[in-house]
Amino acid sequence: MSGTIVQQGQSWIFSVPATLIAASAIGGPKEGKGPLGADFDYLFSDNRDGQASFEQMEQRMLQIACEMAIAKAGCVADDIDFFLCGDLLNQITSSGFTARSLARPYFGLFAACATAVEGLILSSLMVASGAAKKTMCAAGSHTCTAERQFRYPNEYGCQKPPQSQYTTTAAGAAIIGNEEGVIKITAATIGRVVDLGITDSFNMGGAMAPAFADTITAHLQQRGVSADYYDLILSGDLGRVGRDIALDLLYRRGIELDERRYIDCGCLIYGDDKAVFAGGSGCGCVASVSFGHIYRRLMAGELNRVLIAATGALLSPTSSQQKQSIPGISHAVALERI
Amino acid sequence: MSGTIVQQGQSWIFSVPATLIAASAIGGPKEGKGPLGADFDYLFSDNRDGQASFEQMEQRMLQIACEMAIAKAGCVADDIDFFLCGDLLNQITSSGFTARSLARPYFGLFAACATAVEGLILSSLMVASGAAKKTMCAAGSHTCTAERQFRYPNEYGCQKPPQSQYTTTAAGAAIIGNEEGVIKITAATIGRVVDLGITDSFNMGGAMAPAFADTITAHLQQRGVSADYYDLILSGDLGRVGRDIALDLLYRRGIELDERRYIDCGCLIYGDDKAVFAGGSGCGCVASVSFGHIYRRLMAGELNRVLIAATGALLSPTSSQQKQSIPGISHAVALERI
Repeated sequence: MSGTIVQQGQSWIFSVPATLIAASAIGGPKEGKGPLGADFDYLFSDNRDGQASFEQMEQRMLQIACEMAIAKAGCVADDIDFFLCGDLLNQITSSGFTARSLARPYFGLFAACATAVEGLILSSLMVASGAAKKTMCAAGSHTCTAERQFRYPNEYGCQKPPQSQYTTTAAGAAIIGNEEGVIKITAATIGRVVDLGITDSFNMGGAMAPAFADTITAHLQQRGVSADYYDLILSGDLGRVGRDIALDLLYRRGIELDERRYIDCGCLIYGDDKAVFAGGSGCGCVASVSFGHIYRRLMAGELNRVLIAATGALLSPTSSQQKQSIPGISHAVALERI
Repeated sequence: MSGTIVQQGQSWIFSVPATLIAASAIGGPKEGKGPLGADFDYLFSDNRDGQASFEQMEQRMLQIACEMAIAKAGCVADDIDFFLCGDLLNQITSSGFTARSLARPYFGLFAACATAVEGLILSSLMVASGAAKKTMCAAGSHTCTAERQFRYPNEYGCQKPPQSQYTTTAAGAAIIGNEEGVIKITAATIGRVVDLGITDSFNMGGAMAPAFADTITAHLQQRGVSADYYDLILSGDLGRVGRDIALDLLYRRGIELDERRYIDCGCLIYGDDKAVFAGGSGCGCVASVSFGHIYRRLMAGELNRVLIAATGALLSPTSSQQKQSIPGISHAVALERI
């Protein structure tokens, strides 16, 4: 056994951690107008930008995110040993087509909106264990593909309840490697599926909050640190409704998160924009916020220790129509300047 | 770096390999009547067996496969450190609901019909690197859920062309651990996406065959062995059309597979049954054949070295409707008695 990875319950502590070498974030027009606009590497001014379909636009954004991350890492696609990617589309086709373009060995992943962090965790495992020198993980989403697939095409103009969230049009990619660097991936906690029986598919924040609380509790206990070890805990994407529930659930477990140091990606990305209801969501939300905004703040030294606990709602339209409740999951990863 | 995992290109050679501790295969009525009927651990006599939906039946089969594998390994669910699972349903809901029941840390995967091997590879990485003591991987499919989702409900009685394949109603699960045992997971090759432009979504065998040839070529070269190192090379699931194309593609690359030692799961599972057209397919096909039939033959000493190269077609109905071609992928894993 290697000794570079210590398993503690559902957590991995990386004693020889991988480096987050480079990261990129791509957004659409609405994301660019939000408070994090300046933290994207590239912003499209149109949600389709001349592509034949929104699906092709989603794939294009994912691909540009990957290409920019590779360029920022100062390498070429062939230097990437393994590519880990996922998205919200049925059969994660945006990821499959992006993997086709990159022509690198590919692992397809699905953890709904937590996919970027599932990829980051597995990438870190590969590098820390010596199974890879360099990996890339990515995830993305598009409001027009997701709304049509999961609910109704935006053109219908359906009413939405206040607990609903708005799927982000964004993508993020990160390169992980065994070389020296500023940001290390020091620990990870792999989530269990938690489902308290919510069936309202608009209330994904409420459905995912218990999984977030479960993973945070496990992470702090298994890593042996308290919440204030981290300068910032980032959930993604509980939205305003789920965030309040998460704070409450953790408080009841004796974990009091400092509200100034606990941020939700879904609350952050669009600021006070009322048109997004409870906030942003989608694979691209935590991916672009983590690999854009948070990456920059870590690189600038404004943050030293960040725990990203991405959350995913593992439902499908079919499972909702069949009256199944919504299983939630949350995967957490610690990024630190050390 | 650990030294237990040697990376050679897109392959991993496990110098301290994980053990395949136990495996299970569950099938439906048609699978039970095929030539591998006796190799299933449990067979349902009805495709729905009283469940409210075919989707719930698919999940139930996956869950029973997991429970039987756990029982055969002589452990309980809580002994499983990580659960890796995937299926063909949109947002892999069968896997998510199974993970909910098991309540173990969960990685959702998608590689279409190659998902079981993606899970087996990542499971082996976790155990070989010391990141887990025991993992479980699983995959499953159901003919009624897949046909409805990807093509038409079976009740429509649509005509199908001879190159089409029949989605298997089956599930398989395997437990991988760091303890002593008969079958070791000695090497793996992670596939690249290969797409030669086939757009006929009935011809998945033809679409996936180039990916299989690509992975076999890479595996043999990177492991430094010839095809006859293996007692058996198993593809899953190219069917009769894809198998012939694969043999031809490899022959042109100078790799001549011995036809007696190269079998395709899709050709094997239903024998000469003409109602399945070119053969079986679906996540459950390679999963149940590998974790049922092949596992038993390895345990019995009839086989000593097997290379399972699962294949997946990374299309969706949406991508086909949008005239996209079919990306193929093939992940390979070596199981050996050593």
